[in-house]
Amino acid sequence: MTLSSILQVVVHKDSPRGVHFRRAGPRQRVYFEADDVQACIVTCGGLCPGLNTVIREIVCGLYHMYGVKRVLGINGGYRGFYARNTVPLDPKIVNDIHKRGGTILGTSRGGHDTKKIVDSIQDRGINQVYIIGGDGTQRGASLIFEEVRRRGLKVAVAGIPKTIDNDIPVIDKSFGFDTAVEEAQRAINAAHVEAESVENGIGVVKLMGRNSGFIAMYATLASRDVDCCLIPESPFYLEGAGGLFEYIEKRLKENGHMVIVIAEGAGQELMSQNNQSLDNGKDASGNKLFQDVGLWISQKIKDHFSQRGKMGITLKYIDPTYMIRAIPSIASDNVYCTLLAQSCVHGTMAGYTGFTSGLVNGRQTYIPFYRITEKQNNVVITDRMWARLLSSTNQPSFWSPKDVIEDKREEEPPTELLDDPSCCAENGLVGIGKGTG
Amino acid sequence: MTLSSILQVVVHKDSPRGVHFRRAGPRQRVYFEADDVQACIVTCGGLCPGLNTVIREIVCGLYHMYGVKRVLGINGGYRGFYARNTVPLDPKIVNDIHKRGGTILGTSRGGHDTKKIVDSIQDRGINQVYIIGGDGTQRGASLIFEEVRRRGLKVAVAGIPKTIDNDIPVIDKSFGFDTAVEEAQRAINAAHVEAESVENGIGVVKLMGRNSGFIAMYATLASRDVDCCLIPESPFYLEGAGGLFEYIEKRLKENGHMVIVIAEGAGQELMSQNNQSLDNGKDASGNKLFQDVGLWISQKIKDHFSQRGKMGITLKYIDPTYMIRAIPSIASDNVYCTLLAQSCVHGTMAGYTGFTSGLVNGRQTYIPFYRITEKQNNVVITDRMWARLLSSTNQPSFWSPKDVIEDKREEEPPTELLDDPSCCAENGLVGIGKGTG
Amino acid sequence: MTLSSILQVVVHKDSPRGVHFRRAGPRQRVYFEADDVQACIVTCGGLCPGLNTVIREIVCGLYHMYGVKRVLGINGGYRGFYARNTVPLDPKIVNDIHKRGGTILGTSRGGHDTKKIVDSIQDRGINQVYIIGGDGTQRGASLIFEEVRRRGLKVAVAGIPKTIDNDIPVIDKSFGFDTAVEEAQRAINAAHVEAESVENGIGVVKLMGRNSGFIAMYATLASRDVDCCLIPESPFYLEGAGGLFEYIEKRLKENGHMVIVIAEGAGQELMSQNNQSLDNGKDASGNKLFQDVGLWISQKIKDHFSQRGKMGITLKYIDPTYMIRAIPSIASDNVYCTLLAQSCVHGTMAGYTGFTSGLVNGRQTYIPFYRITEKQNNVVITDRMWARLLSSTNQPSFWSPKDVIEDKREEEPPTELLDDPSCCAENGLVGIGKGTG
Amino acid sequence: MTLSSILQVVVHKDSPRGVHFRRAGPRQRVYFEADDVQACIVTCGGLCPGLNTVIREIVCGLYHMYGVKRVLGINGGYRGFYARNTVPLDPKIVNDIHKRGGTILGTSRGGHDTKKIVDSIQDRGINQVYIIGGDGTQRGASLIFEEVRRRGLKVAVAGIPKTIDNDIPVIDKSFGFDTAVEEAQRAINAAHVEAESVENGIGVVKLMGRNSGFIAMYATLASRDVDCCLIPESPFYLEGAGGLFEYIEKRLKENGHMVIVIAEGAGQELMSQNNQSLDNGKDASGNKLFQDVGLWISQKIKDHFSQRGKMGITLKYIDPTYMIRAIPSIASDNVYCTLLAQSCVHGTMAGYTGFTSGLVNGRQTYIPFYRITEKQNNVVITDRMWARLLSSTNQPSFWSPKDVIEDKREEEPPTELLDDPSCCAENGLVGIGKGTG
Repeated sequence: MTLSSILQVVVHKDSPRGVHFRRAGPRQRVYFEADDVQACIVTCGGLCPGLNTVIREIVCGLYHMYGVKRVLGINGGYRGFYARNTVPLDPKIVNDIHKRGGTILGTSRGGHDTKKIVDSIQDRGINQVYIIGGDGTQRGASLIFEEVRRRGLKVAVAGIPKTIDNDIPVIDKSFGFDTAVEEAQRAINAAHVEAESVENGIGVVKLMGRNSGFIAMYATLASRDVDCCLIPESPFYLEGAGGLFEYIEKRLKENGHMVIVIAEGAGQELMSQNNQSLDNGKDASGNKLFQDVGLWISQKIKDHFSQRGKMGITLKYIDPTYMIRAIPSIASDNVYCTLLAQSCVHGTMAGYTGFTSGLVNGRQTYIPFYRITEKQNNVVITDRMWARLLSSTNQPSFWSPKDVIEDKREEEPPTELLDDPSCCAENGLVGIGKGTG
Repeated sequence: MTLSSILQVVVHKDSPRGVHFRRAGPRQRVYFEADDVQACIVTCGGLCPGLNTVIREIVCGLYHMYGVKRVLGINGGYRGFYARNTVPLDPKIVNDIHKRGGTILGTSRGGHDTKKIVDSIQDRGINQVYIIGGDGTQRGASLIFEEVRRRGLKVAVAGIPKTIDNDIPVIDKSFGFDTAVEEAQRAINAAHVEAESVENGIGVVKLMGRNSGFIAMYATLASRDVDCCLIPESPFYLEGAGGLFEYIEKRLKENGHMVIVIAEGAGQELMSQNNQSLDNGKDASGNKLFQDVGLWISQKIKDHFSQRGKMGITLKYIDPTYMIRAIPSIASDNVYCTLLAQSCVHGTMAGYTGFTSGLVNGRQTYIPFYRITEKQNNVVITDRMWARLLSSTNQPSFWSPKDVIEDKREEEPPTELLDDPSCCAENGLVGIGKGTG
Repeated sequence: MTLSSILQVVVHKDSPRGVHFRRAGPRQRVYFEADDVQACIVTCGGLCPGLNTVIREIVCGLYHMYGVKRVLGINGGYRGFYARNTVPLDPKIVNDIHKRGGTILGTSRGGHDTKKIVDSIQDRGINQVYIIGGDGTQRGASLIFEEVRRRGLKVAVAGIPKTIDNDIPVIDKSFGFDTAVEEAQRAINAAHVEAESVENGIGVVKLMGRNSGFIAMYATLASRDVDCCLIPESPFYLEGAGGLFEYIEKRLKENGHMVIVIAEGAGQELMSQNNQSLDNGKDASGNKLFQDVGLWISQKIKDHFSQRGKMGITLKYIDPTYMIRAIPSIASDNVYCTLLAQSCVHGTMAGYTGFTSGLVNGRQTYIPFYRITEKQNNVVITDRMWARLLSSTNQPSFWSPKDVIEDKREEEPPTELLDDPSCCAENGLVGIGKGTG
Repeated sequence: MTLSSILQVVVHKDSPRGVHFRRAGPRQRVYFEADDVQACIVTCGGLCPGLNTVIREIVCGLYHMYGVKRVLGINGGYRGFYARNTVPLDPKIVNDIHKRGGTILGTSRGGHDTKKIVDSIQDRGINQVYIIGGDGTQRGASLIFEEVRRRGLKVAVAGIPKTIDNDIPVIDKSFGFDTAVEEAQRAINAAHVEAESVENGIGVVKLMGRNSGFIAMYATLASRDVDCCLIPESPFYLEGAGGLFEYIEKRLKENGHMVIVIAEGAGQELMSQNNQSLDNGKDASGNKLFQDVGLWISQKIKDHFSQRGKMGITLKYIDPTYMIRAIPSIASDNVYCTLLAQSCVHGTMAGYTGFTSGLVNGRQTYIPFYRITEKQNNVVITDRMWARLLSSTNQPSFWSPKDVIEDKREEEPPTELLDDPSCCAENGLVGIGKGTG
């Protein structure tokens, strides 16, 4: 039996019925003997609620479902493979960690040196690598997978996609997302209370979302207190008819106060245009300031309304980012993290490699690395959910119909599930172990 | 144009590809003129997080999406139609209600007198009726719908299914369910802390679930602190090999403490057997006590371990039912309630009647009343989710393999969506308005 | 230098200016050498928010303030001294425990065998004993202190009074009390929502308080949603003019719903009278039921209103006891626990023994054991706070003026502080070490 | 009978036993007839948890304790007296407001025009004015009180001191303070999780406290996760031996991460020195940035560690200010707000004027305006509480012993209570009504 690349199983990629992923779950034949397994877990990138639950459930899944006793934690992200000592993990050690935010393993950005990492994997006798991180991390996982295959190692490399922004494609939703939306309510509530308590009060809340505005959109839909939601996918402008300032004035006149939610990646073009003309010789710290769209837009709004003849406003800016990232996951995310981790363990134990586990159309699947790193998941502003948001906030759409046409995404064939519980080797798939060993 | 019964649109019921429901959403042609609409909303049955959000979003949806200004709240459930005054509802009145638990309209059980209700609908000139409640309530809604049709009234009758237990079939999930699972964590945590703090500590938590154990199952999966989860769908027994007492002893010996979650409908047969033999001449209040499975099982466990030769235990029983039902909904439920309410409003305004709105396979749909009242949604104990739970708690399955075979549900063809945004009348459907007017 | 019994320092007990306690705090002369100290900590009795904070701060206080490295945790209450192994405690181990409810040391009731405990103290070479528990526990601590003195051991015995009910006298407030009142709000809110959502809805919440109704009183004052608060100190009756039933009827007629908070020790006489006449031949489990005043009063109210001619009611009973006891302490209790623990450490290191630390008139003091065990702290129903409660709930006082006169407590001279930072030995106090060694 | 200035009752100001305040509470003789009262309430300045509770309890206290039915809410702070319409307030309207943050009346800064305000009071026939606000607001209240007296109006002017920072002197604690400290834990926890999850992670949390560091100090003591607490009362410096940077390096080397809490008013001198030399020609927006001490110190730390040879750090900055200010008050603050409001009502109804209600040495008292505006309450860094903090964080004291001597506040005679329930007029006090009318 060999390790099988999930890469191979996408058999009907261009079929009219769309892309197929293997359904996740326990397999009848198990590739690894429990006693032979030396697994390791690493977490990379920014914090996200649920990291500790995923770690816990990989450890407990390996232990309770398969009897695997040897699991190492890699400290501090990718560079922990070669720069630090590891920590042994067992069910007792991880028993309560899902009740804490952050990651008990520590994390870092970057530090990916494929060769040194695979050296370390070999040196330590590791044969299962669980990598939890965002798209950059999963690209790194893919490189490790390829290097492992090149060296002909019998090492399974599996990922669990992590992005608080929900910007990873293919999967229905990323873990920690519901928790983030829930916790964001606290900031929006505060902004609402602050805005409501003064005349012409404006509360501005910046939420996570560099490239996609999912958190901002769902937090807005959940709150019902937001008058304007600005996301990267929906361009907007400040001045003139149909612009943001006009809308703010209108809203304040109607209601006396308003709440604006802005995703951190919204209005980036506007901001860079604006800064270029304004701050040609700007210094480092000025730069810093303007890179935060929340501070920037707050200043812009204040400047606008401080002009002669404009109404006086009181603006309060709230940035809850780190308070959201650092909390423990809520119950629904805990269940979700558990399923992801257990699916991942089943896949790895069955001899799959080069995959991440993910929920697709409501089902746990195995997805080849490249599928989740090749593009991004974005809010589609011609879809119903954004229409619901516009109807809920009453904000203008800011863009003209022609923008929409350009934005319109190409129709994709829907993804489908390939429910095949038989072992991969039986399908005549080329496994790494076999192909190169 | 006529009101169309959703009943009619299930065109391919016996097709190989399963049941089809109309996809929810705005329609190009609107049946009601905004100025002619006199809508009413009623909430029935027990409390459930999200009731106020649904009320809010029906009112705001009618107002903001269609310009409907006249919406009445019926006070105190079905009997409020004929026994009480109504309250006018507008976006300002309902603005903050989603932040409160309960229902601002009040609720009650029973009180359904179809004739008097439809009389009241006629007398008040109501032509849109929104009914939020469980399966009993939806059966009542169905009767109202039929009486309305019999009388030839141009009145749309729509339901939004409410069940904190998630025991309504067809739909993916009932609103308030995620909130209930989240809040249940608090009780499980407390039980865990209490159990852990003493020698041979047992924490027993009773959760909602008369006929189905979804809350107990998901709360157990989310918590990771539960050692045994008992639900109505999975029979168990107390004494002897493989029984609950044996498992408790084993668990206490291993761990020194344990947490048991029990759904309110679990072990009912066991309890009634038991009481018959034991308390033949029991009085009313004794009876009361024993109908609560949580108190009953706690007493049984205490009695068992107070026998000579058994280990001493300390048992703490927690019943968080009313503390769970009464809280405001969390963000994900708020979004869900919003979609349900908006879908319902779109359907009614488009001239559909006799339907509930619900999420099916991830999409908002319109479902004929009878489909959601004809049977119940249960945990399928041969499914993966229950297997995951067993693997998570390590509890025995209690039943023998032959039980499983009997329990195995018949395979159903999957439900599918009928995505047909064209107006119903164009489909040649017989609408009530047309058929009788 | 000798260990000094705090017993000795109450020099002016009968002076007109009241009782004096030593002010707590660091002393210039330290009795124990850090390297000679072998401390131990034990927690006894029921759970109370803040136990882990107290444990943490004794360990950290000894370590950081005095350099004491050897601290043992006694597992499972008093019997842990002779029945179990101890656990070593250091700042790293206790670092995060204040964020968890319960006690990491475990607890139990009873198990106090003075001789065996002091044997164990001698055998283990322990010379500082920190005992956290209620009045029973502190009486036990007093016995240990006396036995230690009798044997002439140089062992300091110190207590930290624990009672979630706030029923320990002398001290301003017991730790965990604010947390309990805070958490009780959740149950009262739920009761309020449940009651408000139905016609003639009654929410009954049972709160802790066997002998004193402080939690019930403060939770009622904080909530503003309670219509009736019943505590042990204020007798009440059910039937007839001025009775509870009459008040309930009146309140329901006025408001349509009501919330009743009842302390667990309220109405005990009424209940036992009632049961004697009613349930002469009652069995064990019936007895159990009736011992819970919350279940009992709920049944009584239901029975009353189920009589012919009475209004129909819907009653929901909530018992949040274990959910309150098991939570981590809130910030103000964390600060309070820290001060108590640090004071206790200062006292012990300075050579005091036979005392508890406690806040008296806003200042940290050392209190001889007997002072806090000789009587109880009760709500004085002729005081302003109870008058405020009555004015807040509008409930009748239930008792007649003559009851008040009987209840009136004797005026006590106020307690005062003896601010004496000089070492005890210099005061010519007879220390145990000296007196017997 | 006349209105009595509380000013007059400080009879023994220079007595050896300190300042005396009248004890608050109901009086036997009531100055105002309930039917003659036209009360108004105004809230001024920034938000603070508990504002709505105070409003609620003034309204309910007047209504339920004295039968006063006519209470007006002044909208939007002082300027609401002459610039806006008022809102009628009754127990029903204010019933649930204590569960919401902010102030239902709205607030504003400034807008104090004594003459116009008193004109408005006269025009509207108001004879009781309740003013909730900080020291600026209370100074304004004092001016209104004097103008009222000058005009010979029979108008009682009472204040309730509001300062989330706890910087008002004389009183034991300001309302909302415990809530602020509680909520600050959330930000500190997040900072701790963020810091702990990366190598050399630093979490910086800015908390309220322009002139006094109480919130920062108590939040630090409550959290146990803070390594350094910087407050306005304790000067610090960045560079060199004993400076902040040195301490950070030491701490990171020991622990790998740290949390810094900084009060908004800390390090102001340092910051202005620093900016003067650095940014001579700086522009408005650069200025803005540097006025926030949290952003400033974060930048300074980053700059320091980005120097060649320094360790790499990851710093996360959290400013939870508006999220803290805007929440509803916790239970203990609710009780406190209730007592303050009821005391204030009792005082006003008894005919006192020119006072605020406040807790002094654990008792409700009436305090003349000037006493709480003449100076500020500060953390005394030579006191035990600050010593406890230093011992808890292990941070250096930063200042040299000579600083301490200069900082040492003059010993004040302690305040005492004058428990005099007899009516003021009987004391021969000159009341305003009498003196001028």
